[in-house]
Amino acid sequence: MVQFRAATRADVPAILRLLADDDVSRERDGVAPEGKDERDGVVPEGDDERDGVVPEGEDASYWAAFEAIDADPRNELIVAEEDGAVVGTCQLTFTPSLSRRGAERMTIEAVRVRGDLRGRGVGRAMMLWALARARERGCRLAQLTTDKRRTDAHRFYESLGFVASHVGMKLALET
Amino acid sequence: MVQFRAATRADVPAILRLLADDDVSRERDGVAPEGKDERDGVVPEGDDERDGVVPEGEDASYWAAFEAIDADPRNELIVAEEDGAVVGTCQLTFTPSLSRRGAERMTIEAVRVRGDLRGRGVGRAMMLWALARARERGCRLAQLTTDKRRTDAHRFYESLGFVASHVGMKLALET
Repeated sequence: MVQFRAATRADVPAILRLLADDDVSRERDGVAPEGKDERDGVVPEGDDERDGVVPEGEDASYWAAFEAIDADPRNELIVAEEDGAVVGTCQLTFTPSLSRRGAERMTIEAVRVRGDLRGRGVGRAMMLWALARARERGCRLAQLTTDKRRTDAHRFYESLGFVASHVGMKLALET
Repeated sequence: MVQFRAATRADVPAILRLLADDDVSRERDGVAPEGKDERDGVVPEGDDERDGVVPEGEDASYWAAFEAIDADPRNELIVAEEDGAVVGTCQLTFTPSLSRRGAERMTIEAVRVRGDLRGRGVGRAMMLWALARARERGCRLAQLTTDKRRTDAHRFYESLGFVASHVGMKLALET
């Protein structure tokens, strides 16, 4: 039985492993993972793949990021837990707006399910949980972006009611 | 000379008019505005068009939304001002993340330029200002979504360095 809850500090290493897991498969294949990695339709969002691994000496920035998310009432880092193990994660951001009669919108980022558990409905259950969370907060819109190449992911999200109405554009910033 | 700054309470009516302006043009044409409305490339993002007008009796929700944005250190409602008039707006959201070595990403929403001023570079100046703001905060990524039909907008954003790598998916939530 998979359960969903807000991540704690203790979950951070497992979450980073989930992020890194995809990183590895991408670097290995040179392209978006295909086949078994997409069975569940829940595949990593394109801009999140990099930097999933904790590099030496940079741990502090990850802990600071966790603390920032944890302290922000409009950001929720979620884990899916089964038999005491973290098997999935996503991040929910609630954005207030003057559009849509002042309601918040929910943006979903960094969706991951552990590689060996894909295809078992964990991703679907996690997205349904996230959408219920959005309704609970009174959001009128949920949104996400997914890499153009991940057609299985598009079908998965469409099966949940998402409409591929937009182009998602990204700009890497040198800092 | 156009200048950019955080919106104040006094700007809210002008911002709502900018949001509503597009609403009207869309309803009139039944499709995304073409021609002169897109000369500047800065056209409204697809999911923001609705509810730009303040309906009777619902003002309170708009003021509450403004207060929520204004009080949130990770949301910035921006106005472009020329000769004392609000001529453009956008909303910037800074999201902390465990990806990308813990850096924030900036999401740009609700981009608008006053209809009679499009094609004069206001939108470009506003986006460059927003990207400078992102760099100042140490963001490693800027992102936005734009309606699939707005091909002029895609070219505009690409000219600023954005890459159309993703599909933007939206799900309207009944509440």
